[in-house]
Amino acid sequence: MAKMAAKKYVYFFGGGKAEGMTVAKTEKERKLILGGKGSGLADMSAAGLPVPPGFTITCQACAEFYTNNRKWPAGLEEQVKANIAKVEKLTGKSFGRGPNPVLVAVRSGAAVSMPGMMDTVLNLGLNDETLKAVIELTGNERFAYDSYRRFLQMFGDVVLGLEHHDFEHVLQSVKDRFGAKLDTDLTIDGLKAVVEGYKGIYERSGKSFPQDAFEQLKLSMNAVFQSWNNPRAIKYRQLNDIRGLDGTAVNVQLMVFGNMGSDSGTGVAFTRDPSTGENKFYGEYLMNAQGEDVVAGIRTPQKIETLAKVDPKAYAQLVEIRGKLEKTYKDMQDIEFTIEKGTLYMLQTRSGKRTIFAAVRAAVEMFEEKLIDKVTAVQRVSTGQLNQLFAPVLDSGEVAQAEKSNGVLARGLPASPGGACGQVVFNAEVAEAWAKEGKKVILVRIETSPEDVGGMAVAQAVVTARGGMTSHAAVVARGMGTPCVAGAGDLQIDYAAKTVRSGDKVVREGEYVSLSGFSGTVYMGQIKVQPSEIIQVQDGKMKPADSLLFQQYNKLMKWADEFRKLGVRANADNPRDSDRAIKMGAEGVGLTRTEHMFFEGDRIVSFRRFILVAEEVKRLREELEAAGENKAKIDEIRAKLAAPEAQYNQALAELLPLQRKDFEGIFTVMGERPATIRTLDPPLHEFLPQEPGNQLEMAKTMGIDVEMVKRAVENLHEFNPMLGHRGCRLGISYPEVTAMQARAVIEAALNVKNAGGKPHPEIMIPLVGTVKELQLQRKVVEDEVAKVMAERGLKKLPFDLKIGTMIEVPRGAVTADEVAKVAEFFSFGTNDLTQMTCGFSRDDAGKFLKDYVKQGIYDYDPFQTLDRAGVGELVRMAVVKGRSTRPDIKLGICGEHGGDPASVEFCHMVGLNYVSCSPYRVPVARLAAAQAALKYEYGMLTGGKAPAKKAVKAKPAAKKAAKKVTASIKKVAKKVVAKAKAVAKKPAKKGKK
Amino acid sequence: MAKMAAKKYVYFFGGGKAEGMTVAKTEKERKLILGGKGSGLADMSAAGLPVPPGFTITCQACAEFYTNNRKWPAGLEEQVKANIAKVEKLTGKSFGRGPNPVLVAVRSGAAVSMPGMMDTVLNLGLNDETLKAVIELTGNERFAYDSYRRFLQMFGDVVLGLEHHDFEHVLQSVKDRFGAKLDTDLTIDGLKAVVEGYKGIYERSGKSFPQDAFEQLKLSMNAVFQSWNNPRAIKYRQLNDIRGLDGTAVNVQLMVFGNMGSDSGTGVAFTRDPSTGENKFYGEYLMNAQGEDVVAGIRTPQKIETLAKVDPKAYAQLVEIRGKLEKTYKDMQDIEFTIEKGTLYMLQTRSGKRTIFAAVRAAVEMFEEKLIDKVTAVQRVSTGQLNQLFAPVLDSGEVAQAEKSNGVLARGLPASPGGACGQVVFNAEVAEAWAKEGKKVILVRIETSPEDVGGMAVAQAVVTARGGMTSHAAVVARGMGTPCVAGAGDLQIDYAAKTVRSGDKVVREGEYVSLSGFSGTVYMGQIKVQPSEIIQVQDGKMKPADSLLFQQYNKLMKWADEFRKLGVRANADNPRDSDRAIKMGAEGVGLTRTEHMFFEGDRIVSFRRFILVAEEVKRLREELEAAGENKAKIDEIRAKLAAPEAQYNQALAELLPLQRKDFEGIFTVMGERPATIRTLDPPLHEFLPQEPGNQLEMAKTMGIDVEMVKRAVENLHEFNPMLGHRGCRLGISYPEVTAMQARAVIEAALNVKNAGGKPHPEIMIPLVGTVKELQLQRKVVEDEVAKVMAERGLKKLPFDLKIGTMIEVPRGAVTADEVAKVAEFFSFGTNDLTQMTCGFSRDDAGKFLKDYVKQGIYDYDPFQTLDRAGVGELVRMAVVKGRSTRPDIKLGICGEHGGDPASVEFCHMVGLNYVSCSPYRVPVARLAAAQAALKYEYGMLTGGKAPAKKAVKAKPAAKKAAKKVTASIKKVAKKVVAKAKAVAKKPAKKGKK
Repeated sequence: MAKMAAKKYVYFFGGGKAEGMTVAKTEKERKLILGGKGSGLADMSAAGLPVPPGFTITCQACAEFYTNNRKWPAGLEEQVKANIAKVEKLTGKSFGRGPNPVLVAVRSGAAVSMPGMMDTVLNLGLNDETLKAVIELTGNERFAYDSYRRFLQMFGDVVLGLEHHDFEHVLQSVKDRFGAKLDTDLTIDGLKAVVEGYKGIYERSGKSFPQDAFEQLKLSMNAVFQSWNNPRAIKYRQLNDIRGLDGTAVNVQLMVFGNMGSDSGTGVAFTRDPSTGENKFYGEYLMNAQGEDVVAGIRTPQKIETLAKVDPKAYAQLVEIRGKLEKTYKDMQDIEFTIEKGTLYMLQTRSGKRTIFAAVRAAVEMFEEKLIDKVTAVQRVSTGQLNQLFAPVLDSGEVAQAEKSNGVLARGLPASPGGACGQVVFNAEVAEAWAKEGKKVILVRIETSPEDVGGMAVAQAVVTARGGMTSHAAVVARGMGTPCVAGAGDLQIDYAAKTVRSGDKVVREGEYVSLSGFSGTVYMGQIKVQPSEIIQVQDGKMKPADSLLFQQYNKLMKWADEFRKLGVRANADNPRDSDRAIKMGAEGVGLTRTEHMFFEGDRIVSFRRFILVAEEVKRLREELEAAGENKAKIDEIRAKLAAPEAQYNQALAELLPLQRKDFEGIFTVMGERPATIRTLDPPLHEFLPQEPGNQLEMAKTMGIDVEMVKRAVENLHEFNPMLGHRGCRLGISYPEVTAMQARAVIEAALNVKNAGGKPHPEIMIPLVGTVKELQLQRKVVEDEVAKVMAERGLKKLPFDLKIGTMIEVPRGAVTADEVAKVAEFFSFGTNDLTQMTCGFSRDDAGKFLKDYVKQGIYDYDPFQTLDRAGVGELVRMAVVKGRSTRPDIKLGICGEHGGDPASVEFCHMVGLNYVSCSPYRVPVARLAAAQAALKYEYGMLTGGKAPAKKAVKAKPAAKKAAKKVTASIKKVAKKVVAKAKAVAKKPAKKGKK
Repeated sequence: MAKMAAKKYVYFFGGGKAEGMTVAKTEKERKLILGGKGSGLADMSAAGLPVPPGFTITCQACAEFYTNNRKWPAGLEEQVKANIAKVEKLTGKSFGRGPNPVLVAVRSGAAVSMPGMMDTVLNLGLNDETLKAVIELTGNERFAYDSYRRFLQMFGDVVLGLEHHDFEHVLQSVKDRFGAKLDTDLTIDGLKAVVEGYKGIYERSGKSFPQDAFEQLKLSMNAVFQSWNNPRAIKYRQLNDIRGLDGTAVNVQLMVFGNMGSDSGTGVAFTRDPSTGENKFYGEYLMNAQGEDVVAGIRTPQKIETLAKVDPKAYAQLVEIRGKLEKTYKDMQDIEFTIEKGTLYMLQTRSGKRTIFAAVRAAVEMFEEKLIDKVTAVQRVSTGQLNQLFAPVLDSGEVAQAEKSNGVLARGLPASPGGACGQVVFNAEVAEAWAKEGKKVILVRIETSPEDVGGMAVAQAVVTARGGMTSHAAVVARGMGTPCVAGAGDLQIDYAAKTVRSGDKVVREGEYVSLSGFSGTVYMGQIKVQPSEIIQVQDGKMKPADSLLFQQYNKLMKWADEFRKLGVRANADNPRDSDRAIKMGAEGVGLTRTEHMFFEGDRIVSFRRFILVAEEVKRLREELEAAGENKAKIDEIRAKLAAPEAQYNQALAELLPLQRKDFEGIFTVMGERPATIRTLDPPLHEFLPQEPGNQLEMAKTMGIDVEMVKRAVENLHEFNPMLGHRGCRLGISYPEVTAMQARAVIEAALNVKNAGGKPHPEIMIPLVGTVKELQLQRKVVEDEVAKVMAERGLKKLPFDLKIGTMIEVPRGAVTADEVAKVAEFFSFGTNDLTQMTCGFSRDDAGKFLKDYVKQGIYDYDPFQTLDRAGVGELVRMAVVKGRSTRPDIKLGICGEHGGDPASVEFCHMVGLNYVSCSPYRVPVARLAAAQAALKYEYGMLTGGKAPAKKAVKAKPAAKKAAKKVTASIKKVAKKVVAKAKAVAKKPAKKGKK
């Protein structure tokens, strides 16, 4: 049988060359084959850097190992052997035998770095024979035995699955026997005893230690392959959202030793400071040590700059390599090196992990150093990290101390970033009271509800025991920029006793805790909190000149703004939020939730008065209508109606000036920028207290019987409030509320205009499912506008008023062509649209949604990242349909997704005009919009030249072109509909089965 | 100024001619202009029947009256006057003056009959002058004064809005004064006194009686125009779903008098018996009387056939006219006539209202008489009435008595048709217990839940105080064919006291009530119930030969089956329902809700055992997975897992044989017909008791602590259960349940097959939103099937097994092309699809949905009639997308809409293969499917010839044609997508505002 040429699984590197360099066109593709480590080694080898020779077994070999029932694919063994031969030839050594043995390291290396997750075997090739050769060759018996015992332990533990603690036990007993405190205190005899002891472990287990080096290698490679799917690695990939990889590559490389004496050493370094981004060589090393010693923390590593004195030649070489690598990669590198008897070897280079602070600084400075262009700089900074720039931070030293000394109270979800410290309170009212006294409080709740918003607003941070990343607490806290740890399930909160427990720890009301919304950790006691520099500058507490971070951040965002095509607005419910939004770079307000203001101060009382009579007023009015011309009946109903109707009107009259003032504040702050005001949205029951205690208090405050409150709560109860009486349905039932709000908006805008402002109000009707709802509500608004104009003697409004709607009910999206006839803008409410399209309630989905993501049913939590295939398809449909009847309709999004980078990218792709998100997410949205524009407009995902200036500017011809396309779509769509109708009229033959 | 030719608003009839006959091409269009009455008068006049001359003012004149600020449109006055002149000329009389005065009747008449809703004025033209002329002319002073006082009262009441009781008061006091018991006892002097008294009312009111006849006419016409929008008429149109009409026509017609002596009379008649449909002349008359006397019930009218003796000439003429009218209209007519001094006059003919029994008989017999063809016969019977054929009925005499004697307890919604009588119980368990003792019970609940299903099944009928036409009670009751009155809001039910109150009436447990699910009325006490003949025949309690109704019904349905293209299946949860479904003509089971069986007998205990441990088992299994290789941890978790896992498996093992038996029953009953079994669907909390008392009982039954039950209920609580953990999400969390159900289906089918049956099982996965859910659940099913096959040594299944899904989540519809790759069939679950697409919860929407329909936001309750523009659009999209990836996919619907005629029509239009509905709706669906086919396939809405046989038969080429169309759609769709992508890449210019 003719032998088929086997696939190439193994790529050699060393001696200034690297086979892997031709395996793919881009570095990214190369990494998918050779893994990150293998790609770096090939790169460095090819560039002539001193890399110990070796070879990389591809990620695809690992994948085939799995599909091949955990056996090597055909050809792999031959290729490995051939490559060993190459190493032997290049070094003049032999593998597993002879006087000059090759020892190798076997290391994992996937396309994406997964530090510590997979297995490594060092010193492979040692056996009883080569041990002697090493002793001979190095004249260093201690070194040889030390290497051997390390290998025996690693191989036994990692490859054969022997118990780790058995090895520890042997080591400790030998150390005890020899009176050694540290491993390094062991004498040669001690090490020999350890080797004997280790061999005993193998014997007792019935698993023999293979003396054959190739057998060692084969088993070790298998162990690395298998470690790709150990639970730890799987979990890491899930947590870090690493998808679509085939497996891990395996790097087999000549061992070099940093522990061969004082002229040897090992270290890790970054080409820039990974914490600050400063352009200085940053790293640590230890002489006479192996890599693991640097990490182990027994000896304190030295700063890299001191190497200049210890080994000036190696240091100079390293500095040169540092420059070379940055030029090659045009990015900060994370390197590993070893000095063996005065000779420097490079063991790894990879893109360095960095804080957001370092990412911004490095990107800006690299541009200024002409190392990268603007396009690359803007693409270099992670949108996922960006908002960490604005959060206060816990003092890192104190955090380390707390972690070490059992100071962690609980861990939950990092729901809203930032560090905070304060006194624990369990109740929003206490929070407000204490905050008034100047106390810093942390609000700890089982979960939060709209009643808690006041307390959340004054709290340093919020902790909840239940709820996910999109729970009420998480969403509201993120919106406020308040740090939050959500769903810390270990916390047992006792409201009555005013305690929170976790295991044996107890914290009482008034005691201090600290927390990091970056990590989701809650600590006992006080930890110092540092405010964000950028916020300090924005709030005038620090001069821009004093903050390098602020200056660099500003530069970067300016570049992003040059590239992006999407507008960015903010969701802001009051002047304070609006002010923050502008500082964060928002170009308008995309969503003002008017009802959020209803909770402030006394206005909740007015609104509750309204709620208590609203249904009765409605019912009686209907009776009145039904009474026809029966005068007696009419009089009777009118008599009943008088009191509640007076209360109804009075409540709205009380709310009007308050709302008007709110809007005046927002319009004033926003200047010329548009502000979208949404009419009342949440179901009425959200404005009433659910707990009996609060109900009693409400009754007292209002001077009514508590039974009235209870009845109202009961009346308003809904089985599925999400699908209940809310949104414009309220406005349809109680048009006076819409009218009051419309009047407040218009009067506010007129007042601001008269005071010299330039308001651009937009009134938005929520939860529209059919155009008729919008027509009715639009008429209410327009009638009220006409009234205000008549009262003020105006012929036309002295500003532009737009009336539009949210598209958040699937039916609204499906019938968007009709809805667009009455709407000047759409704002996609993708939170609700996701709930209804996918059939998930945000409040309940936690139970199964994690499983769903885990099982790959949804790639991402659709409440965090817009579900493109489902919800996105409806958005796309609504965009096409909406523009088909109103080509100049303004399209935006104001769900939580507006601040999610992947979702912002989608918004760019479907051609929305803007996204709107919470003020603190505005920079993220700006950056994400820029990155999306670069990715889709210029095909520059992996860097490249900045687009010519004219390509970036909006073309005046674009609108015309868009119209042309729209017309064409309409034409084609007509055909589709005609065909569909034809099909409908000819159903497939009668389905009797 | 040149005068423009005015629009024609008035059409003359009389003297063997009728202008109106040329006004439109079809009778239907003519009615839209002349109204029903006007059209009939024109028809009869043109046919030479003896119709008093007159003229019709069009519906459009009425519409213009409204748009013209309640004034007559230009030209109307002239036209009315010209037509009066025509009447004068034809009769040789003069209007409002002279010795031979014209008296006229002014009658309303819309395109659709609205009996009694609008106004009528008789004897118009009488004044002090013409009164004398009439006395002179007739020599009958009594008649003249009687006519005058009637006119004065009608005109005062109807036209001028004087108080009706003022007239009654005058009449009564004159009668008292003259010692007259009846109106007819009044002497001439008495009548004169009445006339004087009436004139006094006018004077006291300050409104004068116009002596000018044209003024009388003008005011009366205005009154009729205005009565179009009186509250009563508006309500009637709402209740009877009368839409799209312009207004009412007004008919002004020469008065003829049936009260001019013993040679005069008046009557109403039907060309066939409107109760039974029997082909015999049916009617009543009174000699020497006016129309209102026949209705008033003071004198007993005579049967029409006795007229043959009283006035043989008139009777012969009437019989001849009866035949002529049926030949002209090809339908049963409802006529009014008057005999004036021996001369017969026809005053009205219209299509006769009839019971469903009459409708079926008349349609079948008219076909047999060759009066109509089959197409017309099938179209003649109302789908909205059809299911009344199967319901038992309350004795109509006793009902009339109860209505008269204050015997009505409450009125609610006619949620499920049928009459019933029984003892009131307030609790499902009591219902079951009493039913076992042989008692007939009526279950009265505030609302029902799945726990009540057992009680509902044994009850004669169900009454609820809350809930709409699609509430749990209504849906389940309709499914069971149990009469139901839902949402009887006046009922105050006190479970503790075991009483139900309504106003001052109280009914205690054990006392009798009766109810009609036809009318939605609940009566105090016992009323006799008559069973439906058709059901009696189906159940073998009556021979087919003894039931003419059954024979005729059968013929009609056979014709319907010849025409329809849609298959019709039934939703059936057990063998009993399946049996009924087949008797009703179902061609398969479209939906078996397996969980309904969980409530029967002890199986609820098994399932509750499962629920109590399910979450714990899941959690521990996950912990086990996460434990990795930590053996100690693994052992610890395994120890914890042992007991709950045993309970988990045991519960499922207990359910398996029960479910298998259920399915064996269904497959056996269904014969060769397919049966679709849906896997577990409702959220688990529905299987646990919510009331503390029931929780305690559950705990006792199961021998566990009640706290365990409470905790489970609390754990399972969801804020929006509609969007919660249910449907296939349960199967994803607990695949063992799906596997158990799949095994039960397969084992049942194998057993039935082995016993000689021909099962066609279909397994349906509910609530699929993404293809991946279906893939996972499909794999669970297929793996289990493979296991069963292996156990039984089968290489392939000896029957066809289909696996498909419900499309009920909008996302499932949007991604139907993907879903179809894994689904062999779709069944549209339009209940849930409506909830999610429109964003309404069925349980809560009652609050605003009525308003929504009233305000025209939705034309119909979308839970009753499929919302074509929204939900329907998603269905249409899913049909096109589904067929695009799987051209032979089988498509059906199994929501409540499957039994709604308008929705069935839509299913036909979009080309579904079948509809599935509750067994009792199957005939409705069959008829609706036939009518849809006739409407859309042959354009024969208004009758016409039967299609050629070959047109009715399914064409073998149809499939090929459908494929061609699909391919073409795909091509066009591709273009649309490409264009859309192009647009997406070129968003409109950067939206800075």
